[in-house]
Amino acid sequence: MADFQFKIHFLDKKTKARVGEIKTAHGVIKTPAFIPVGTKASVKSLTNAQLAEIGVQCFFVNTYHLYLQPGEEVVNKLGGLQQFIDWEKPLMTDSGGFQVFSQARNNKFGGYGVRVGEEETLCRIDEEGVTFKSFKDGSVHRFTPEKSMEIQQKLGADIILAFDECTYYPATEEYAKRAMERTHRWALRCLTRMSNVKCQMSNLKKQRPQALYGVVQGSVFKGLRKESAKFTGNLPFEGLAIGGVSVGESKKEMINVLDWVIPLLPKEKPRHLLGVGEIDDIFALVERGVDTFDCVMPTRLGRMGQVLKMSNDKCQMTNVKWTMDITKAIYKDDRRPVDKGCQCYTCRNFSRAYLNHLFRSQELLAYTLASYHNLWFLERLLEEIRESIPAGKFLELKQRWLK
Amino acid sequence: MADFQFKIHFLDKKTKARVGEIKTAHGVIKTPAFIPVGTKASVKSLTNAQLAEIGVQCFFVNTYHLYLQPGEEVVNKLGGLQQFIDWEKPLMTDSGGFQVFSQARNNKFGGYGVRVGEEETLCRIDEEGVTFKSFKDGSVHRFTPEKSMEIQQKLGADIILAFDECTYYPATEEYAKRAMERTHRWALRCLTRMSNVKCQMSNLKKQRPQALYGVVQGSVFKGLRKESAKFTGNLPFEGLAIGGVSVGESKKEMINVLDWVIPLLPKEKPRHLLGVGEIDDIFALVERGVDTFDCVMPTRLGRMGQVLKMSNDKCQMTNVKWTMDITKAIYKDDRRPVDKGCQCYTCRNFSRAYLNHLFRSQELLAYTLASYHNLWFLERLLEEIRESIPAGKFLELKQRWLK
Repeated sequence: MADFQFKIHFLDKKTKARVGEIKTAHGVIKTPAFIPVGTKASVKSLTNAQLAEIGVQCFFVNTYHLYLQPGEEVVNKLGGLQQFIDWEKPLMTDSGGFQVFSQARNNKFGGYGVRVGEEETLCRIDEEGVTFKSFKDGSVHRFTPEKSMEIQQKLGADIILAFDECTYYPATEEYAKRAMERTHRWALRCLTRMSNVKCQMSNLKKQRPQALYGVVQGSVFKGLRKESAKFTGNLPFEGLAIGGVSVGESKKEMINVLDWVIPLLPKEKPRHLLGVGEIDDIFALVERGVDTFDCVMPTRLGRMGQVLKMSNDKCQMTNVKWTMDITKAIYKDDRRPVDKGCQCYTCRNFSRAYLNHLFRSQELLAYTLASYHNLWFLERLLEEIRESIPAGKFLELKQRWLK
Repeated sequence: MADFQFKIHFLDKKTKARVGEIKTAHGVIKTPAFIPVGTKASVKSLTNAQLAEIGVQCFFVNTYHLYLQPGEEVVNKLGGLQQFIDWEKPLMTDSGGFQVFSQARNNKFGGYGVRVGEEETLCRIDEEGVTFKSFKDGSVHRFTPEKSMEIQQKLGADIILAFDECTYYPATEEYAKRAMERTHRWALRCLTRMSNVKCQMSNLKKQRPQALYGVVQGSVFKGLRKESAKFTGNLPFEGLAIGGVSVGESKKEMINVLDWVIPLLPKEKPRHLLGVGEIDDIFALVERGVDTFDCVMPTRLGRMGQVLKMSNDKCQMTNVKWTMDITKAIYKDDRRPVDKGCQCYTCRNFSRAYLNHLFRSQELLAYTLASYHNLWFLERLLEEIRESIPAGKFLELKQRWLK
């Protein structure tokens, strides 16, 4: 793993926040970093040129979706994800597990592997792996830890994730324990599979190695989370991800999980939080020592006409902090940019009135301009956070944003 | 109209093709020029920065759509179209007439002003103007020549069009004559209204004048077309548009119309053809002396996954000349760019396989990349055409493209 390194440059004195960089074969990710999601190998509505302007350092692609379309073989044949999507910077893939399980959770009959009359939920789990039906056409597929490694290897992202069982919420402690233990056994199988791969690769010198992150599970149960943190943290993963914290639990529960888990993780390895990224979350997770985190929030909100702003802006019309609903009639003839202090392409060039018009006209450009702004907004916030920590001003910055 | 000038730089010796430039207050349009359509004040899926990269010189906005949303008052309050959409180059609006009539034509009961039981067609025409129902909410509106001028004045494009009756196809000669005569009377009312406006403006020195183009109608009838060309060509319009040639008639009929009309139009004024722009059409209309033309084709085809290519490419899979259906399974793992000779952002960076994947995944980026390529392709073709004429090679170029 010579290509993969994590360096901590600075530790905050008052919190567990830290500044560092993850070095990959495709370049560096300055941490703490927000990792936007490009589910199907595209950060929705934006070109790579726009992502580069925004300053996106890395993005997150979903293995489940790429497995179904176009298939990992196609991506591999085209030279791997980076070549396929013409993105020369780092990329991250998940294991496919979250989607496999969230598909089942969203099924009207809920639960796992339960048969109700003629109906069957979309996935069935056993010790070996998970059988699931495609959300696209109902065709039957099977993921195992080894299969997830194989797919992610063919996709070729710089950072990949161990195949875990993402526990649904709320789950009983008994179920969460069984799922966690299975996740731990699967973690070992992923490591075995990847160490075989690395062994082969170093012989063949054929392909760039990938950094494998383990995933901590355990639902909202303190004992389980601690057990999972210790177990997973002791395995020879290159980094650690914390899973199962964006599945419906409260923000308080998420913070509890971080407080239990992070002190037990090895300090020298990077920590990724899966699926979290609202403004207040960002401060909470950075404060607790999370290095990277991915979330669909800025692009999904953008496509809904929700543009990000500092919460103390007087023009804010929604109850949700830090967003402004640009589709509201009040902006129909508002000549101001979304955010007058913002230097993004959208704010430098367009009025709220034009964005309002584009959303009301359902013009595709609306989604591009709003997503651009939202990502820019978050990237600038993360820059500020990265600067605030060595300056000893992280808590001051947090207070300014969360007041 | 000091701001508006048309200069002819070169006349082809073998055809009626001509090279020139239209000077407007917002810059120059080199002719012959393709004018992309941005119906609702956005060329679909593309930012202005991308349009500028592509080399778009001017685009076409539909008055009918902007009147309904956000309303001309809003655009005017924001400083006019150019400011509203942050486009510093020339813009053109139509009169609203085409949409008013095409809405009625597309109504299941067809015809104009006909009441069938409780149902009513979407527009009713009288000498004064047209009453129509919004395609959005059924609300009732009325356009007159004066109202169209007023709206277009408030929108503020550099080139605007007289309010005409766009004859449906097929129409009887009797109906086409009545409609043409009404269009002629309306042309005079538009000129009257605009000369009053210009008079006021030159006193107030308040607003930039706009160039008004008259519209030649007469359906597919030689006598009517010639009469309309003579009548409209003799009025003090700044330019002439040819209407009613993209309403369902054949390409042969369109060419007939050009052959009848253009020789009767004043040579010194620019000529615009409304709603035409397929590759073979482009050569036909340039050859006959058309200077500018607008069409939704490249962007609409792009959004459908139809990308433009030279017709002699061996990979072309469709029967339609000059397009390739990038959504077809054959491109699933095709690592080549859409067009290997093309220098556009899409072709420089992405494979057919990635475009295929984006379309199959219904990713918004698909529409952006395909529209970008298609507009780039047409802009380069028009550049080639503009160069070929002074070089005496226009017919040679045509032959190469149409073989």
